[in-house]
Order: sequence, then C-alpha cells, then structure tokens
Amino acid sequence: MTKVRVAGFSISLDGFGAGPDQSLEQPLGLRGKELHEWFFPTRSFRTMIGQEGGTQGIDESFAIRAMDNCGAFILGRNMFGPVRGDWPDESWKGWWGDNPPYHAPTFILTHYPRAPIVMEGGTVFHFVTKGIGAALEQARAAAGGRDVRIGGGVSTVRQYLQAGLVDEMHLAVSPVVLGQGENLFAGIDLPALGFRVTEHVFGEGATHIVLSR
Amino acid sequence: MTKVRVAGFSISLDGFGAGPDQSLEQPLGLRGKELHEWFFPTRSFRTMIGQEGGTQGIDESFAIRAMDNCGAFILGRNMFGPVRGDWPDESWKGWWGDNPPYHAPTFILTHYPRAPIVMEGGTVFHFVTKGIGAALEQARAAAGGRDVRIGGGVSTVRQYLQAGLVDEMHLAVSPVVLGQGENLFAGIDLPALGFRVTEHVFGEGATHIVLSR
Repeated sequence: MTKVRVAGFSISLDGFGAGPDQSLEQPLGLRGKELHEWFFPTRSFRTMIGQEGGTQGIDESFAIRAMDNCGAFILGRNMFGPVRGDWPDESWKGWWGDNPPYHAPTFILTHYPRAPIVMEGGTVFHFVTKGIGAALEQARAAAGGRDVRIGGGVSTVRQYLQAGLVDEMHLAVSPVVLGQGENLFAGIDLPALGFRVTEHVFGEGATHIVLSR
Repeated sequence: MTKVRVAGFSISLDGFGAGPDQSLEQPLGLRGKELHEWFFPTRSFRTMIGQEGGTQGIDESFAIRAMDNCGAFILGRNMFGPVRGDWPDESWKGWWGDNPPYHAPTFILTHYPRAPIVMEGGTVFHFVTKGIGAALEQARAAAGGRDVRIGGGVSTVRQYLQAGLVDEMHLAVSPVVLGQGENLFAGIDLPALGFRVTEHVFGEGATHIVLSR
C-alpha cells in the first residue's frame, strides 16, 4: 500500500523548517542551512554531491530511510525555485543541477502551467495546477505501489498535514533556534490529526522523531 | 553576579510547556505530565518525593544543575495553584505539600495580595502584586548573590523572556507532541533576544538544550 510520507524534514527547536527571506542565494532562507547540518556529513549527502566517504551512524541511517522506497515526490513551488508568478521562460530547472536527488517522478505544486522537464538520473518534474489532491493522485499513480514523499517546503507539508493526507512523518530536530521563518507546527494539532511519536532516536547531529498514525 | 535562569523546563516537540485545561486534578494540564517523563526516574526526583534510588545519568545531571545555586525562585500564579481571582482563604499552600521542593524564598506573581507563608525546609512563599520587575528585584535581593530561577509556568517564562530579563535557559525537550496547551515559543524570537544554543546533550529521556546570551 502506498504510504504518504514526510521524511528527513529538518526543523529547529522552535519549530521552523526554513528561515525567512528565501532567495536565489539563500534557498533555505536566512540561517536555514543550519537546520540541515546533521545531514551534510553523512555518506548519503556526500554521495549526492559526488563525494566519497561520509558518516555511517544514526543520522545516515535516517537519511537512507528518508529516500528508501520513494516512488514519487511532491514539492511546493518555492521548494522548486525562487521564481514567483508566471514562468518567464523554461530556463529554471530547480536548485539541483542536471541530476536532481529525486530520481523519480516529482510533482511541483504551482498556479502556472508548464511542460514536464526530463532531467538526468530519472527525475521528471511535472507541474500540477489543480491543487494538492490532484498532485497526490498523480503521484500515487506514478509511484507504482511505492511511497509518495512530500518533499517540502514547510507550507506544502502543512497543507498535506491539515488535509489529513500524511501517514508518517520523520523530523530531524536540529539543536538551533531560528526565531523567524516558516513554522511547521503553528496552529497544527498533531495529536488531533491522529499522530503520536512512534520513534525517537538521538543522532549525532539531530534528534530523529518519527510520528505515525 | 546573580544570573536569572530558566532551568529544567520541559517542553514538547511542538513547543508546549503545559497542556490545556489546568485543574486541581491536572496541575500540568491535559497530558502535561508526559513532558516530565524524563525527570521522574531520576535520583533528584525520587529524593524530592522521599524515595530512594533513581537514575544517575545525563537527565539526572541536568536535574541537579537546574537546582544548583538557586537563591530564590519566581513562579506564576497558576504554577502555584488552581485558585483564580482573589484568595478565598489561606488554605491553599501550593501543589507540593508541607515541604515544597524550592527550599528558598519563592516569589509568586499575583494580582491579589496575601501574607507570606513559611513552609518546611526553607521555602517561604511571598506574594508579589507589583509585576515581574518588582518580583525580580525582590528575588535578587533575597538570593544573596546566588541565581534567581524563573520556575514557570509558560506564561511567566514568556513574560521574563520578552522583557529581556533571562540570562540562561535550559530546556528539556521531550519526545512527545501535545498539539494544544501553552506554547513557549509562539511569537518569541530567541535569536533576536540574543540567545543561541550553547549546549545540546541527548539524555536518556529528553534532549537537553541550554540557550545563553
């Protein structure tokens, strides 16, 4: 059965999943990079950027799980890029270069239609203008029985949570406070949505929390 | 120099320091007790309730630090008890029985004056009606050079934080989500207040975070 998962999603102690003021230079918002410090030393991340080595501890085991069995991804428009409004041309193809780390059909939520983009390594970006339900339907069909991962950003995760469409969520809580940015929890009652903490593991650089329902 | 500290302060992953609907039966609000599960097995807690034994690991070391060098405490009215409005009589003397765990002058913020109460074991409850600044002044004078600890609850900690009066804060982040209750962080920008994470230690039952400025 296809599971809808949030995974490897980094937040600060005060609940922010991204800093404020996202831009081309700061894709994660101001100080947003600090949320992901647990991930950068891992073997998974180093492999992703074409480097050797990397840690193989608890943080790495959660990085592996986050990518495991993902048949399709869903991303918000801002997670895909800094372009707002209509697409001025076809030049923006994501933050990740020619070979993005998804390696699967990846559905981008947007109000502005655009033709699919076939990238290297199996990633195909599809642009969905009919909302989160339509995107999930398409992602499920594309996932071929494997999981659909809601890749982010914060606003997209919040929309799927509030719609009751997420089955499992792995959060990596980093030991930083941001004070500003996009808050994952504000106004969201996870227990009321049926979630409880089913795993909590102290990693090398973050506390890993799995919420299930 | 007297430090003003928050310490041993338990919160949920989603930032709640107490559950909703505090009452005589649920002093910590609904599910609030789950925030403190890290503390109950410790030697400090067991000693506090007159029991032997208890764990002596990381959680215990933070429990000891939380009580160390405290010359005076400040508590909000609701942390002292469930009574609201004017004191109907002198019968309510806190949640803690004849020998409260403070063992030092303890200043209760309230709008309703009341005579001090001398408890066993060194705790004296003083009732302060002139606000958080006056309470801190009195607590500083009483602390004799030792630290003043803001004992809670959430609203009291938030008021002292927002007034820029807290020097150090130790939070014990418990692996639960509450969804409702009193949120410590909402609308509070800790970096803007000068705080950064100076320690983070994974304990047996909670992640311990020290914020300093």
